[in-house]
Parts: sequence; C-alpha cells; structure tokens
Amino acid sequence: MHFELTKDFLDDISTAVAERNTAFVNENISELHPVDIAQILDQVNQQEAQFIYRQLDGELSSSVLVELEEDIREQFLASLSAKEIAFQLDSIDSDDAADIIQDLPEYRIQRVLSHIEDDEHSGEISKLLEYDEDTAGGLMAAEYIVTNINWTIEQSLKELRIQAEETSYVYTIYVVNDENQLLGTLSLKSFLYADNKTKIKDLYRIDPIAVTPLTTAEEVAQLMEKYDLVAIPVVDYENHLVGRITIDDIVDVIKEEAEKDFQMASGISERVDDRDSVLILTRARLPWLLVGLFGGILGSLVIGSFDEQLKVLPVLAFFIPLIGAMGGNVGVQSSAIIVQAIANNSLSLDSTSKKIIKELGVALINGSVLGSLIFAYTFITGSAIKLSLTISISLFCVIVFAGIFGTLIPLILNKRNIDPALATGPFITTMNDIIGQLIYFSIAWFFFF
Amino acid sequence: MHFELTKDFLDDISTAVAERNTAFVNENISELHPVDIAQILDQVNQQEAQFIYRQLDGELSSSVLVELEEDIREQFLASLSAKEIAFQLDSIDSDDAADIIQDLPEYRIQRVLSHIEDDEHSGEISKLLEYDEDTAGGLMAAEYIVTNINWTIEQSLKELRIQAEETSYVYTIYVVNDENQLLGTLSLKSFLYADNKTKIKDLYRIDPIAVTPLTTAEEVAQLMEKYDLVAIPVVDYENHLVGRITIDDIVDVIKEEAEKDFQMASGISERVDDRDSVLILTRARLPWLLVGLFGGILGSLVIGSFDEQLKVLPVLAFFIPLIGAMGGNVGVQSSAIIVQAIANNSLSLDSTSKKIIKELGVALINGSVLGSLIFAYTFITGSAIKLSLTISISLFCVIVFAGIFGTLIPLILNKRNIDPALATGPFITTMNDIIGQLIYFSIAWFFFF
Repeated sequence: MHFELTKDFLDDISTAVAERNTAFVNENISELHPVDIAQILDQVNQQEAQFIYRQLDGELSSSVLVELEEDIREQFLASLSAKEIAFQLDSIDSDDAADIIQDLPEYRIQRVLSHIEDDEHSGEISKLLEYDEDTAGGLMAAEYIVTNINWTIEQSLKELRIQAEETSYVYTIYVVNDENQLLGTLSLKSFLYADNKTKIKDLYRIDPIAVTPLTTAEEVAQLMEKYDLVAIPVVDYENHLVGRITIDDIVDVIKEEAEKDFQMASGISERVDDRDSVLILTRARLPWLLVGLFGGILGSLVIGSFDEQLKVLPVLAFFIPLIGAMGGNVGVQSSAIIVQAIANNSLSLDSTSKKIIKELGVALINGSVLGSLIFAYTFITGSAIKLSLTISISLFCVIVFAGIFGTLIPLILNKRNIDPALATGPFITTMNDIIGQLIYFSIAWFFFF
Repeated sequence: MHFELTKDFLDDISTAVAERNTAFVNENISELHPVDIAQILDQVNQQEAQFIYRQLDGELSSSVLVELEEDIREQFLASLSAKEIAFQLDSIDSDDAADIIQDLPEYRIQRVLSHIEDDEHSGEISKLLEYDEDTAGGLMAAEYIVTNINWTIEQSLKELRIQAEETSYVYTIYVVNDENQLLGTLSLKSFLYADNKTKIKDLYRIDPIAVTPLTTAEEVAQLMEKYDLVAIPVVDYENHLVGRITIDDIVDVIKEEAEKDFQMASGISERVDDRDSVLILTRARLPWLLVGLFGGILGSLVIGSFDEQLKVLPVLAFFIPLIGAMGGNVGVQSSAIIVQAIANNSLSLDSTSKKIIKELGVALINGSVLGSLIFAYTFITGSAIKLSLTISISLFCVIVFAGIFGTLIPLILNKRNIDPALATGPFITTMNDIIGQLIYFSIAWFFFF
C-alpha cells in the first residue's frame, strides 16, 4: 500500500544510474512522494543522488530538497549555483526555505536571497534566518491565513482566496484588528458553517494561546502537545502576528527531545544513528566511557583500601558485581522516573521531601524483597550467617541509598538549570557503583573485623 | 501568558472547596481551558475534584472528561449514572466517547449507549469499541468531512456545512465516489481558492496514503510522521472510507513509543510516572531488579569458580567493578543505537555482517583508547606489568565483545518479532557484566597460572 524502500530497489537504481537510464528514474522514482524520493537520495551514493535529482522537475525537486537529511542536502547545495538555489526556494514556504539555506556561508545566503524574484518572500526568509533554530522564530513560517475582525464572512473569503495561494496548508484562520494584533482564531468549521453576511466579530473565538519568536522549541512543543494544537500563532511583544508554527515541525521536536533523553540514558553524548560513520559513532560514545573508566579506577581504589579484608575473606569479592549492578539499576530507575516527569512537564507539585519519602517507600519494599532473597540464597548454599547478613544488609542499604540518590540528583540539576537527563545513564550508574562498594565493604568490616 | 498550575493555586482551591465556595470555582476555574481544568482535577483529591466538576456546565464538563487521566476518570464515571454519562458523550467526537467508556463493564457500556439520543452517534461509538486501542480502528473518529467526485464546489460547500456541524476539526476533505470508496483528498487551500462552478474531479489530488482499521498505532504514527500528515483516512479492505485519525492522537502515540523505549532502557517494566502510588512504582521496578539479582548470583558463581586465583592475587578483585561497568556501558550504547533505528524505521539496509563490522570498528577504537589508558594508569601506579596487561587486555576484549553482543541481540529480537527495546537496559548490562568477569578471570588465569 505504501512505498517501502528495499535493498533490491536500491540495487536496481544503481544499475539504472550506471547505464544512465533516465527512463527508469522517470517511471519509478519521479512518481513517488517527495519524502520517499528524499529517502532514496539519502541512501544511494553521491553521484547516483545527483543523477536522480537532476531528472526531477522544478517543484518536485524543491520539495525533495526540503526533506533531505542535512549532510546530503549540503552536498547538493554545493553543486548548485546561487541562482539555481534561489529558483528552488521560490515555490516553498519561508520556514522551509530558511532551513535549507541557513547553514550556507553568509555571502552565499545573500547571493541566494538576491536571486529570489519575489521580494516579499526573500524578505521573510531573511527575517527568519535571524532566529535561532531552537526557538519559535526559527520554526515559524511567515505564511498564514488571517482575517480582520471587522469583516464579514464574504469579505474574508475573498481575502482568504488570495492568501491561500501563498500558503501550503490551511489549518486555522487568525483574527486580527486593523493593527495586525492577534485577537483570536476562527475555526474552519465555523467558517464553513456560517452565513455569508455574518461578521467575523460575532463568530471568532478569543484564544490567548500564542508564543513569541524567542520561546524555546521545547516550550512550543509542550504547549501544542498539551492543548492538542495543529498550529500555534507567533506574536511579537506588542502582540502583532508575525508567523505560525505547524504541528509537523513540532512532531520532530517532540521526537528529538524524547530521543535525546533515551540517548543520554544510554551513555551517548550526541545525536547519532546507525548510518553514521565509525568516527562519528565513536565520538558520541567515547566521552561517557571515559567517565566509566574514571569511575572504575575510583572503584578499584575503594576496594583496594579494603585489601587486608579481601585477603582474609576472598569470598567478599564474589558479590562485588551484584552490589554494583543493583546500585546502578536502582539509581537509573529512580532518576529515569524524575527525568521523564520533568521532560513532560508533569512532575508532581509535592515538595522534594515528599518525593524522597515516596522513593523511600519503594526502596524499602524492593530492598526488603531482594535482601531477603539474597539472604535465603547465600544461607541455603552454605555461607556463614555473618556473610549472608553482610551481603543482604549491604544490598538493602545500597538499594535505599541508590533510590534516594537517583531521585535527588535530577531534581538538583533541574533546579540549577542543567539538563536533568545527565543524571540518568552512566553518571548515576558509576556513582552508585562506587558508593555501593564502599557501603558493602564497610558493612563487612563492621561484621568481621 | 499561559496557565501554569502552582502549589499556591491548589491550596486556594482546597480552601474554597472546604468552604463550598462555588463563586471561586466559577470565577477562577470554569474560565480555563478544559486541558487545564483536567490537570487541576488530576491533582486535587477526589472530593475536591467531584465538587469542582459538578460546577462545570454541560459541554465544558464533557471536554474536561476527555482530558482527564484514566484512573481519575474512572472514579468520576463510577459516581455518574448511565444516563448522565450518555449526556456527556452527546457533544463529543465518537473516538473520544469510545475512549471514555471503553473500560466500563460491558453491561454498563450497553446502558450508556442506549441512553445516547442520536442513534447514528451511538452506533459509531459502539463500532469503534470493537477495535483494539492500539490499532487505527481504536484511534479513528467516525466524523470526517467528505465530498463526492461528481459534485461542484458549490454543491460540496452546502454538504460540508451540514457535515461540519458534527465534526470538531476540519483538516482535510476526503473525496469519494458514489460507493463511498476513497479516491483522494481536496486541500482546504484548493477549496478556498477554487471557483464555485469548478468540479471536484478537476481539483482533487489522488492520494493513496490510507490505513486500515487493523493497522497498528505504531505504523500509523510512522506514516503520519514520515509524510507530515495532520490527518490520515482509514479505509476497509474494499477501500470504503470508514474514519480518520488526527495528529493530536498520534502525537500521544509517538510520545508513548519513545517513552516506552526510555523506560525499558531504564529497567522499568510498565508505564509509570512520579505521581503513581508506591505500590504501582514498586511493581514497575521490581521485575528487572529480580533479573539483576539473578545476574548478580550468576556473577558470584563465575568469580567463585576462580576462588583459588583470587586467594593468590586478591588485587584482581579491585578491577571487578571496572570490567563489569564498561561491559554494561558499551552494551547499552550499541544496543540503544540499534533499538532507536528500529523504532524510527530508519535502520540502514546494510546486511547484519556489515553492521557488525562497523560496530567492530567503533569497538576497536574505543577498546584501544580505554585499554591504553588503563594500562598506563596501572603501570604508573606501580602494578606488575603482567597485571597491567591482564587488566588492559581484558578491558579491550570486554569492550569488543559487549559492542558486538549489544548490536546483535536487538537485531535478533526484532527478527523474531520481540520488542528489541528489551535488549537495552538491565538485560544487556547484566549479561555483559557476567561475561565480562568470565573474560577477565580467564585472561588472568592465562597470564598468571
């Protein structure tokens, strides 16, 4: 039913390109959705991509350009003249156009903009380029549909037809006054349903949900998600309507935020995927491994300081991995719950001490269950009662400590405006591992020495 | 600018409810967005929530009901009669109505449906209830806007005005033939822009992207995300239009999918948040801790089998946490990259052996860097060269093994249709910890004994 890129199809493409078979491209690729074509170009090699791209006609090639992955798009832009790029930007929304050229060198951006025929369009793109990518300004499009509060439905319809020509999607109609200040929205439903003579002012809904160009992308995402919006208006500090952000751009933000937390929790320090090069993948993975190495050395010093005890009682070493792993697991669990609540803006309004008491409750249950189990196991398999007690009490203490520590650290980081996701993954595992060994050997020392 | 729920406001609400102060509710709560009201009801206690809810008027209380969290909603429904519930469902879309009553006992559902005045509406709700929550059928609404290919814009407009009355949002107009088979879509833009006499058949776009009621929610999310859709039509096996799914429901699916992977990687076995009770939180956390406990016991058996060596060379124990932690970290990193690529449907089309070779590249670099560092550290701090070699070579081997193991396991799980996210988190950490110790002590045995 839907296009699915297969290895076989990629092989066919390679063969066709090698034979300069333009008919193949026209029959099998040009008919696809721009998103699918972009996916093909992302997967084939550079020469093949260039060959295919040159067969696509004007509007289609612009749409494909919007959908390409950044690194592939840069290769394409490098092979096009400023005039050719400008031609591609003519038919697409200002926000997509700004995205496409934003990473070009400044002099090239200026040259591209000077080649765009419609001055209003190039002006809008140029304005959008001033905003940071991660803000509402960087996400918004300057194209939107607007009507005046003093008009009738009939007058509006005429105006909207003109505006619609420039806007690729229509979701919400914004209602402004004569100064272009946002007053509310008009749903398409009420528009369709209303009589021609009805005045907009009798029909529109006062709707205060808007953001400014400097609102962070994350905050925009939280608002749109919370209120189930498909589009959100952007206003300046005097409430003049300057743009709108649509949900498709925000879905990407929502997804990236969630993935960032996942990668952080997995010890990966930059956004990578399995198609990246070995070097990029290594660069993303080595930093947290170095933290782990450092933690491992600290751990060796902790255990090393109990050298004498280990010589007398080498059986203590057997349970080092258990203590380390459980501390790490419990810490990751408790911090993950806090990190996710912060990311979702759904953290309970309870005080920190109430949160800690709750975590204490969980830790006491988990600690009792797991401590009893390991006591039973060691006792049944013939360990001395003192050893069984050492291991089970240590495990209990480590679980309680790691749970509270894992809850506190992300809360503290968040208060200091540091990304709390830093607290999940390798950091918390490493810390709890070390402190866990300290607890374990201290309790052993207490029982035996 | 936007409503932000604070602890102070919650305190004011408690006081007002204790004083039966209905004026407070009408002035400060009834004016809020239904989403914000639902958020308040989710946070206050049950009596307070009931009191506030009873002050809301008809349509508002329905909208709030849609937005409530499931457990709170169940409490509300329990306190309402079937007739009262039916009254709430009258004014909302069929998909939201079905969501609200789906967890009620079967006899109560039937009673609620029998009280809904509009037979068509109750029929639609009843049909939607047959589908699983996690399928397109469970997500779709039966309300949509449709036009016939043989009509003109003018005829369509008349029909659409009638349809719009029942549909809360209008995004896309679907085009069908006389048999209600889906042919394509008409953008609102082209609708606004077109002349009254234009025929739909000259204006519509053939658009093959549709799903069936049995398509999984995950697949629907992938399609909508990939093609930047705000709504997707649902058709039966003979291509009859049966419903549409809107992006707001899918944003929740996308978010839940990403969060599920994050929680799985953090060793949490069901969807929880920090406001859940101690018992629910424990239930979500204990299972993976039991796996960890079992792994720790296995680890103790592995190390225990090298009992003699440890007695002779207790310094070996110092580096047990380092080996365990690094194996765990590397395994989580490599499996996370694969799991995320699978979740995004962006796994490269390279063969498994090519993927392993790439991971081998990363592991060889990381292993060499970290192995050299630990060699330098142990050598400088005065360890015997044989010991330094043992530790650094073990670390290198563990990193290579864990990287490949972490890549392979999610690929294998995915091929067997098991959720690959199972492979991240505690499972891979525990496995790599145990195997890491085996590698470490075997190499030590080789060097020293």
